[in-house]
Amino acid sequence: MTRAHNFSAGPAALPLSVLERAQRELLDYGGSGMSIMEQSHRGAVYDAVHNRAIANLRELLTIPDGYQVLFMQGGARGQFAMVPMNLLRRGTTAHYVDTGTWSAHALAEARRRGSAESIWSSADDGYQHVPTAVDVPSDSAYLHITSNNTVVGSQIHARLDGGDVPVVVDMSSDILSQPIDVTQYGVIYAGAQKNMGPSGVTLVVVRDDLLERSDDNLPETMHYGKVAAKNSMLNTPPTFAIYLVGLVLEHFKELGGLEAVAATNAHKAELIYRTIDSSAGFYTGCVQPAARSRMNVTFRSPSADLDKEFVSQAADAGLIGLKGHRSVGGLRASIYNAVPLESVRVLVEFLEEFKRTRG
Amino acid sequence: MTRAHNFSAGPAALPLSVLERAQRELLDYGGSGMSIMEQSHRGAVYDAVHNRAIANLRELLTIPDGYQVLFMQGGARGQFAMVPMNLLRRGTTAHYVDTGTWSAHALAEARRRGSAESIWSSADDGYQHVPTAVDVPSDSAYLHITSNNTVVGSQIHARLDGGDVPVVVDMSSDILSQPIDVTQYGVIYAGAQKNMGPSGVTLVVVRDDLLERSDDNLPETMHYGKVAAKNSMLNTPPTFAIYLVGLVLEHFKELGGLEAVAATNAHKAELIYRTIDSSAGFYTGCVQPAARSRMNVTFRSPSADLDKEFVSQAADAGLIGLKGHRSVGGLRASIYNAVPLESVRVLVEFLEEFKRTRG
Repeated sequence: MTRAHNFSAGPAALPLSVLERAQRELLDYGGSGMSIMEQSHRGAVYDAVHNRAIANLRELLTIPDGYQVLFMQGGARGQFAMVPMNLLRRGTTAHYVDTGTWSAHALAEARRRGSAESIWSSADDGYQHVPTAVDVPSDSAYLHITSNNTVVGSQIHARLDGGDVPVVVDMSSDILSQPIDVTQYGVIYAGAQKNMGPSGVTLVVVRDDLLERSDDNLPETMHYGKVAAKNSMLNTPPTFAIYLVGLVLEHFKELGGLEAVAATNAHKAELIYRTIDSSAGFYTGCVQPAARSRMNVTFRSPSADLDKEFVSQAADAGLIGLKGHRSVGGLRASIYNAVPLESVRVLVEFLEEFKRTRG
Repeated sequence: MTRAHNFSAGPAALPLSVLERAQRELLDYGGSGMSIMEQSHRGAVYDAVHNRAIANLRELLTIPDGYQVLFMQGGARGQFAMVPMNLLRRGTTAHYVDTGTWSAHALAEARRRGSAESIWSSADDGYQHVPTAVDVPSDSAYLHITSNNTVVGSQIHARLDGGDVPVVVDMSSDILSQPIDVTQYGVIYAGAQKNMGPSGVTLVVVRDDLLERSDDNLPETMHYGKVAAKNSMLNTPPTFAIYLVGLVLEHFKELGGLEAVAATNAHKAELIYRTIDSSAGFYTGCVQPAARSRMNVTFRSPSADLDKEFVSQAADAGLIGLKGHRSVGGLRASIYNAVPLESVRVLVEFLEEFKRTRG
C-alpha cells in the first residue's frame, strides 16, 4: 500500500500507527471477543476507554479541576447553536470576533437564539488579518472567538483577554496542535475530525460556574450540565469515535506531549511558508504574515488556471486535498497534527518543481 | 479468536463479515491510500459511500419518492427534541403513545418544547401490554409511537393508524428487522447502534410535506429541511459510522433483503420464547405474550439472586449482555439483526442447562 499525502481540511489524516492499532483490534477488543463498537456503553470495557480518553485530554491539555470534559455530537456547527442555548440568557448580549466564514456562521446561529453582536471583524479585507486585542463590554454574556480559520488560513496568535467575560473558543481546527492555557477560557469546543480523530464526536470543555446558566428546559442531550452530570453518557455516545480519539491522544503522549507536537507543527508550517516566500512572487500567501495559520496554509499560484493544474498534478503525484475552499478558491495545504513531516517535504519539493516548470 | 455471543441491548453485535471487511479496508479504502475516515466529506470517494448508503436504505425499506433520508447526529434522544422542534407548531398539540421508558422520555422532551399529551399508556401495569389501536384527535400535530421497547421488551405489532395525522415512530430498536410500509409514517427515526451500525449516526426518514413546518430559526443542524437540502452534508457527517451502516445494508441485501432478515429474527425469538414457555414456570416472560418483542426478550428466573447467578455463569460461558435494564431488573436477551442464530441456539442450551441445575 502506498499511503497518500493527505492535506484535506477535514476529515483529515490520522496517525498511521493509530489506524494500524484500530485495525488490529477491530474484531476483538482486549480479548473480549467483540469489537469495541459492539460493546455496551454501560459495560466496564467501554467505560475504561471512555474515561481514559477524558483523563488523557485532561493531561495533554492541562485541564484543571473546575472544568468538565464532554463528548457531544453534532460538530462545531452544532455548538454554534448549543453555546448560546446554554450561555446566552435573555436580556444579555454575546459578542463575537469575526475572523472568517465559521465565525460568521457562529454569529448568525447565535442571533437566531438571542442577542449577539460582532465586536471585531476583518470581513472588509477578506479576513486577511486577525485581532491582537479586543474590547469587550464588561456585561457581555461571553466573548466568542475562532482560534483558527480553516477557509482563509489564519490563526489568532495573541491572547484575547475577556477580563471577567468568559471567552468561548471554537478550536475545531487547532485543538491539541499546541499547548494552551485552559484557564483563559470559559468554553472550548472542537469537532474531532481535524486534529484528534474521526468525524462524529465533538469535544466541549466547560468551566463549572457556566453550567449554572443553562435553562432546565433545554433539550437534555444539548444541556451542558446534564451531559456533564452523566459523564457524557446521558445517551449512547459515539463509542468508536471516542475510542479512536483515545488512541490519537495516546499517540500524542508517546510523541512527548503537545510541546513536541507543536514543535513539529511549527516546523511543517515554516517549511511551506518559506517556500512560498522565497518563490519570487510565483506563490502568494492569502493572509497577512502575522495572521498565518500553522494548520491551514493558503496560497495562490499566478492564475486560477495554474491553481487548477497544480491540484490535478499534485493528485497524480499522490498529494491529496490541496484545492482551496470553494468559497475562496486558490490552494490550501492543511497540515494538522497527523500530517507527517515527510508529506510536507514531498509537498515542498512539488511546490518547487511546479514553479520550475510553470514559473 | 473466540467470538462472544453478544446479547447487548446496544451498541450491539455487528455482522462479522462487515467487521472483517471494515478491517481489511481500514488503512486503504478502495486503493485511495487513505482510510475512509480520512477522506474529505466533500470528495468523490466519500460522496459515493454516502449516496450508496442512502440508495440502499431506500431499496431495503422501500422508501418512496416524497420522503427524504437524513443522517443526523445525537441519537434517538436527540430526536426526542428535534421532532417537536421541527413539527410542533405553537398552538398545536402532539399526542404520544406511552409504551415504555423511552416513550415517556420522548413525551417529557416534547413537553419542554410545547404542548404534548399522552393519549395511551400502559405505565399502570408496568408497560406489560401495547395498544392495538388508538384514537387520535384529528387536529393533532402528530402521533408519536415507539415501535419496540428495549427496556421492558415489548413491540407494537398492530398498525396504529393516525388517519390524516402524521405518525412519527421511534424505530431505534427494530428498524430494518422486518419489512415496513413507510407510507404509514410521517417521520421514522432510529439510532444506528442496534440494528444497522455503530453508535454515532441517527437515521431520519421524513415526508416532504412535513419539512415545511420547521421554523427558519431552528439551529441549522437540527432543521430537517436544511439538512435535507444539503443531503445530510450541511456540516461534516459522521463519515465512518455512515460507511459502516452502508456495509451493514449491503450485508442485508446479500442475505436476501428484509423478508429474509425478518424470517431469521422471528425464528430466533421463537426459539427463546418457546424455551421460556416450556420451562414449567422456571422462567417467566416480563410482558403479555401479544406484546412480546422479537428484538428484546425479557424474562426472569425464580429469584433476583438466581438472575444474578444466571448473568454471571452466562458471561463465563461467553454469553454477554444478558442482564435486564437497571430500571426493571431480570434478564434480557437482545437479538438484533446481527446476533447469529447460532448464538441464540447456544443461549437456548444455556437456558435449559441452567434450569436443569437450578430448577
